[in-house]
Amino acid sequence: MDLSSFLTSLATSFVIFVVLMLVFVWLSRKPENAVVYYPNPILRGSDPWDGARRRTRSPVGWIAEAFSASEADVVAAGGVDAVVYLIFLATVMGILVFSGIVLLPALLPVAGTDHALVDASKNNKTAGNFTSIDKLAMGNVKNGSQRLWAFLLGVYWVSFVTYYILWRTYKHVSNLRAAAKSSPDAKPEEFAILVRDVPKPSPGQSIKDHVDSYFKALHPETFYRSMVVTDNKEANKIWKEIEANKKKLARAEAVYAESKSTSRPDGTRPTHRTGCLGLVGEKVDTINYCNEKINELLPKLEAEQKITLREKQQSAAIIFFNSRPAAASASQTIHAQNTNTWAVLEAPEPRQVLWTNLPKKLYERQLRQAVVYVIVFLTVVFYMVPITFISAFTTLDNLKKLLPFLKIVADQIEIKTVLEAYLPQIVLIVFLALLPMFLMILSKAEGLASESHAVRAAAGKYFYFVVFNVFIGVTLAGTLFSSLKSILNHPTQIVPLLGRSLPGNATFFLTFVALKFFVGYGLELSRLVPLIIFNLKKKFLCKTEAEVKEAWAPGDLGYATRVPNDMLIMTIVLCYSVIAPLIIPFGVVYFGLGWLVARNQVLRVYVPSYESNGRMWPHMHTRIIAALLVYQITMLGFIILKEFCYAPFLIPLIPITFIYAFICKNRFYLAFAHTPLEVASREIKETPNMESIYTAFIPPCLKPEKPDDIDHFEDAQSHTSRSTSLT
Amino acid sequence: MDLSSFLTSLATSFVIFVVLMLVFVWLSRKPENAVVYYPNPILRGSDPWDGARRRTRSPVGWIAEAFSASEADVVAAGGVDAVVYLIFLATVMGILVFSGIVLLPALLPVAGTDHALVDASKNNKTAGNFTSIDKLAMGNVKNGSQRLWAFLLGVYWVSFVTYYILWRTYKHVSNLRAAAKSSPDAKPEEFAILVRDVPKPSPGQSIKDHVDSYFKALHPETFYRSMVVTDNKEANKIWKEIEANKKKLARAEAVYAESKSTSRPDGTRPTHRTGCLGLVGEKVDTINYCNEKINELLPKLEAEQKITLREKQQSAAIIFFNSRPAAASASQTIHAQNTNTWAVLEAPEPRQVLWTNLPKKLYERQLRQAVVYVIVFLTVVFYMVPITFISAFTTLDNLKKLLPFLKIVADQIEIKTVLEAYLPQIVLIVFLALLPMFLMILSKAEGLASESHAVRAAAGKYFYFVVFNVFIGVTLAGTLFSSLKSILNHPTQIVPLLGRSLPGNATFFLTFVALKFFVGYGLELSRLVPLIIFNLKKKFLCKTEAEVKEAWAPGDLGYATRVPNDMLIMTIVLCYSVIAPLIIPFGVVYFGLGWLVARNQVLRVYVPSYESNGRMWPHMHTRIIAALLVYQITMLGFIILKEFCYAPFLIPLIPITFIYAFICKNRFYLAFAHTPLEVASREIKETPNMESIYTAFIPPCLKPEKPDDIDHFEDAQSHTSRSTSLT
Repeated sequence: MDLSSFLTSLATSFVIFVVLMLVFVWLSRKPENAVVYYPNPILRGSDPWDGARRRTRSPVGWIAEAFSASEADVVAAGGVDAVVYLIFLATVMGILVFSGIVLLPALLPVAGTDHALVDASKNNKTAGNFTSIDKLAMGNVKNGSQRLWAFLLGVYWVSFVTYYILWRTYKHVSNLRAAAKSSPDAKPEEFAILVRDVPKPSPGQSIKDHVDSYFKALHPETFYRSMVVTDNKEANKIWKEIEANKKKLARAEAVYAESKSTSRPDGTRPTHRTGCLGLVGEKVDTINYCNEKINELLPKLEAEQKITLREKQQSAAIIFFNSRPAAASASQTIHAQNTNTWAVLEAPEPRQVLWTNLPKKLYERQLRQAVVYVIVFLTVVFYMVPITFISAFTTLDNLKKLLPFLKIVADQIEIKTVLEAYLPQIVLIVFLALLPMFLMILSKAEGLASESHAVRAAAGKYFYFVVFNVFIGVTLAGTLFSSLKSILNHPTQIVPLLGRSLPGNATFFLTFVALKFFVGYGLELSRLVPLIIFNLKKKFLCKTEAEVKEAWAPGDLGYATRVPNDMLIMTIVLCYSVIAPLIIPFGVVYFGLGWLVARNQVLRVYVPSYESNGRMWPHMHTRIIAALLVYQITMLGFIILKEFCYAPFLIPLIPITFIYAFICKNRFYLAFAHTPLEVASREIKETPNMESIYTAFIPPCLKPEKPDDIDHFEDAQSHTSRSTSLT
Repeated sequence: MDLSSFLTSLATSFVIFVVLMLVFVWLSRKPENAVVYYPNPILRGSDPWDGARRRTRSPVGWIAEAFSASEADVVAAGGVDAVVYLIFLATVMGILVFSGIVLLPALLPVAGTDHALVDASKNNKTAGNFTSIDKLAMGNVKNGSQRLWAFLLGVYWVSFVTYYILWRTYKHVSNLRAAAKSSPDAKPEEFAILVRDVPKPSPGQSIKDHVDSYFKALHPETFYRSMVVTDNKEANKIWKEIEANKKKLARAEAVYAESKSTSRPDGTRPTHRTGCLGLVGEKVDTINYCNEKINELLPKLEAEQKITLREKQQSAAIIFFNSRPAAASASQTIHAQNTNTWAVLEAPEPRQVLWTNLPKKLYERQLRQAVVYVIVFLTVVFYMVPITFISAFTTLDNLKKLLPFLKIVADQIEIKTVLEAYLPQIVLIVFLALLPMFLMILSKAEGLASESHAVRAAAGKYFYFVVFNVFIGVTLAGTLFSSLKSILNHPTQIVPLLGRSLPGNATFFLTFVALKFFVGYGLELSRLVPLIIFNLKKKFLCKTEAEVKEAWAPGDLGYATRVPNDMLIMTIVLCYSVIAPLIIPFGVVYFGLGWLVARNQVLRVYVPSYESNGRMWPHMHTRIIAALLVYQITMLGFIILKEFCYAPFLIPLIPITFIYAFICKNRFYLAFAHTPLEVASREIKETPNMESIYTAFIPPCLKPEKPDDIDHFEDAQSHTSRSTSLT
């Protein structure tokens, strides 16, 4: 890629971004779009305040607002997890800014005033296509030149900047987490622990009684009560059917009321067919039918609830304690001598518990994990194989056989050409779009206990995928393919060729990063896709207020794909920071703009679906360190390729990084894995309402109709009545 | 080595053993030797019962007694650790017996009726030296023969026998440990936890106050009191001086009394010189001098104690709780958000605390550990280098220069020849004799908190040393050196040569094992060396009762060298079990006889110096598994060498072993690393005397003269007085 085409693509992306930002400013002012651009404050009930300021705003007002919000505001809007994500962006930006301040003025002149590329193109006509960007990179420094000292020291500078900033960030996040966990507003999960691998009770004893007697004996003073996990499949099915019918009823009533208001005063009662998809079967009056159905299902649900609670108890439970320190301490103490039974861990938030995973036994979980790891490994390394296979299968001819109605379209010669050319790419795009979901399903299949843990696991898997395939794939493939011919002709030239083509890829990545932030952030900010979907849904599908609300529900930030993508950019920029320092400003813009856009989205759009109090940070930290290590090793190899005899001076950095990671782990990590007693022991505002803490964990399908029945809920699980078991 | 020389050495060893056993039976009957052969029951005060039975015993009575003792007896005599050591021996014996029952009748005929060795010697005259033992080994089976199936299945049999027996043993040991830890007799360490890395207190606050306020806040209901570790170097020095003077005084008084009783009624008052080694300086009356010295030192000690307690507090403490579950739970809970401060762990027994290690900071410990590992690695791999160097230096000529008085001896031609020949070996022997001590010093230098942990660490290091140098060294060197010539002549013959010379080493190891058990156990049982040392000491050195008692003090079992040596034999026997099944009976005798002798020694001789409740077992277990893995890999390679195309059928064993080890770890290990709450919660006999629990941890040099002063001990550490700090 030469300079002019690079600048063209850069300019195009920038124009797209500016257009999208203007679209955003224009659209977000319209009051009818408020639910798309401001769902978070609306859901938190702070709409009027925000609305007042909104109307008087300049086009860059959202930027000022994003800057002026305090960390407490962000916590209130998006939780600690969102703050930690923003901190992550700011941290990487900080690393790049500090690196750039030194590297740009130091390395660009050093590289620019040498002329290895010119010399090379003089000697070897075939490889003489370099741009002025390439001239400002390390590839332009002659082999073995003393100028390489500057680059070597640059690696040290970047490494120490990273160490320093990461240390400060880890400390900050650790304090944030501690503050959140010791906040005076007690949260239900802080009083509970999760017990898995409950052993078989003795005959005649229910699991509930077994759990109760076990924990009462071990925690006589702090045990409050327990809740045994049950197999809710049946109850859930009935409950869902009721909910679906309730929704249908509301919708039918809205349709009926609408039809009434126009000309005929009694309107048309909506009807539907009871068969498959409402297409076949008997035609019935929807309102009556749904009412009947609900009345029929409600007692069935109640009966099923009782059966579930009594007979479908499973080998996991949630134990409630009457104080936070007691729960924190119990979750870290080994309970049973047989350590694969009564395994305890901190209870996740009620909303993020993966109930069906809880009863899975230890060895099942281990086995599942092993299988999942193997699948992920195969996916990361060989994902091209099934895609090639599917591409081969989904030729136009095959498709025509399967779907005859395509024939008319596909026989037209222009369409045929286009389709044949793009089908493989479409398969790839579909695969890449489905990949995060696939990885999330795999992570949940490992048997993890909470949504946030599954998200972390999925993010890790996605990180491996993108780093392996984008970074390593492009670097290696780019180097090898572009040089294959030269290598075949002159096999000894492989070393100088590698030395020259690695920086050549820098231009590719520059474009990649630029495209990513301008177009990606523009789309993110303007929310064009959600806006269109919402308006379509509102016009054609939604009848009731609840349905409209569902249509604009913003969802959460989606860390599982967002974080690894940022990680990829970070790895790329870090690795090229010294080779081609021009990439640094692009990295700074990527993370700076990303921080600004994400802050806006956190404050106004996304609604967190869970809160893990920054548990994601150690995960991010480790990956940044891993990227740093990749960078140091790459640079070592790269400077060796440059025939610089002082290259071994870079070797100490590698053990230093390991020691640094080790110290960080010792200093901070455990406080993320467990709740320190110090944190759990801070005072809470008022005596917590234990009843409501307990109720928070009852799954919706098992919630009794009347809230007073909570005690019956517990009694139902126990074979002995509650009054006797407490004495 | 041919058959006759093997049988000769076997017979010689056996005769030595029988002679030593008879010596033991004869000597142990003499009442004056009771303190050498029965120190354990004497110290436990059960002498008369044992003495009555002793006199009527047949020569094999000790065997009957060793067999008849119950596990409870052994626990009473030697503690759980000794039982676990015996169980370890019995377990390995069990594995070998079950392996042998199948392998011997199955494999010996299969090997014996083939004739690869005869054929080989016919074809190749140079390598034709094989014994009839070699004929019964796998080396006699022709390459690629279907007979190798028997050996392949033999590997499976041994592996599964090992899995099964190890599982049963682990379960048994786990129960033993739980029983010991939940025994109704409460032990002081069960109520205490150890805190390291106490952060700096705020100015004006002592560490003691800091610790107290921290733990009082986090454990308001269960905290009893704390004891800050102090730098006792000075106090200890004075205390030791006092003790030495007391001893000297007692000795002088005994000498004086003795001299009185004979002819002169007033006797001679013993005198000594105050200078270096009692050789120079003023001559003084010992009794008066010591009395004066003691009276002078006592107030000095008291003053130093006060200073130590108040001003030499260090960043570690022992925290006492008022119940066992509270201590167990606290020792497993992370206390501080900054996880490299306030690190908690279970308190070791008072007698095995390594006080000087406690205040060492986390990073210092890590650094020390890393340095120690490097030193151990160098020692294991390159220990021959310094020995060669020292050998080169300690030539006779050099020695003569340094120690001129040797000249007269060394100039005699016969002595000179012998010395020159043996000096290098002597250096090696001295090195090997000092190695366990060296490894123990290294392990303690790691900064471990307890003696038993240091012993485990030293045993691990010693294991690596013996396995690497004896097993791998001999196998590889034996194979390579004996075949080097043939390999040089016919380089392609290396594979069949390896295949033949590995079983050749089996004979060497057979002799090694036999020598080891017959001579080693004979010496162990007869206790000739301690007997001689005791009698010499008694005759020439000991004057007082206390000195005599010290002279016969039996010491403990010395796990640090005993366990790795047994491990080495186990590794050897396991690895050769299928290659040369004849080794199995020798292994059985080694472990059977070892069990018998050790049981006798545990019941009658050794006195445990600490009790770790079988904490050694996971260490042993892991090493047995490691040996099994070495065995499986060796066998895989070996059967491949035999050109057997079904050799890959052995591959599944390797992951199976890993999975087995993993399951064992999940199932049992954590209950060894921490005390399960279940175990700590069992009822204790009576309300423990907290005062005495606290006193048990006071180091002897800080113990006040009057036991009532315990409270003052605590007050001394605190800046605020105790009454105020408790309110």
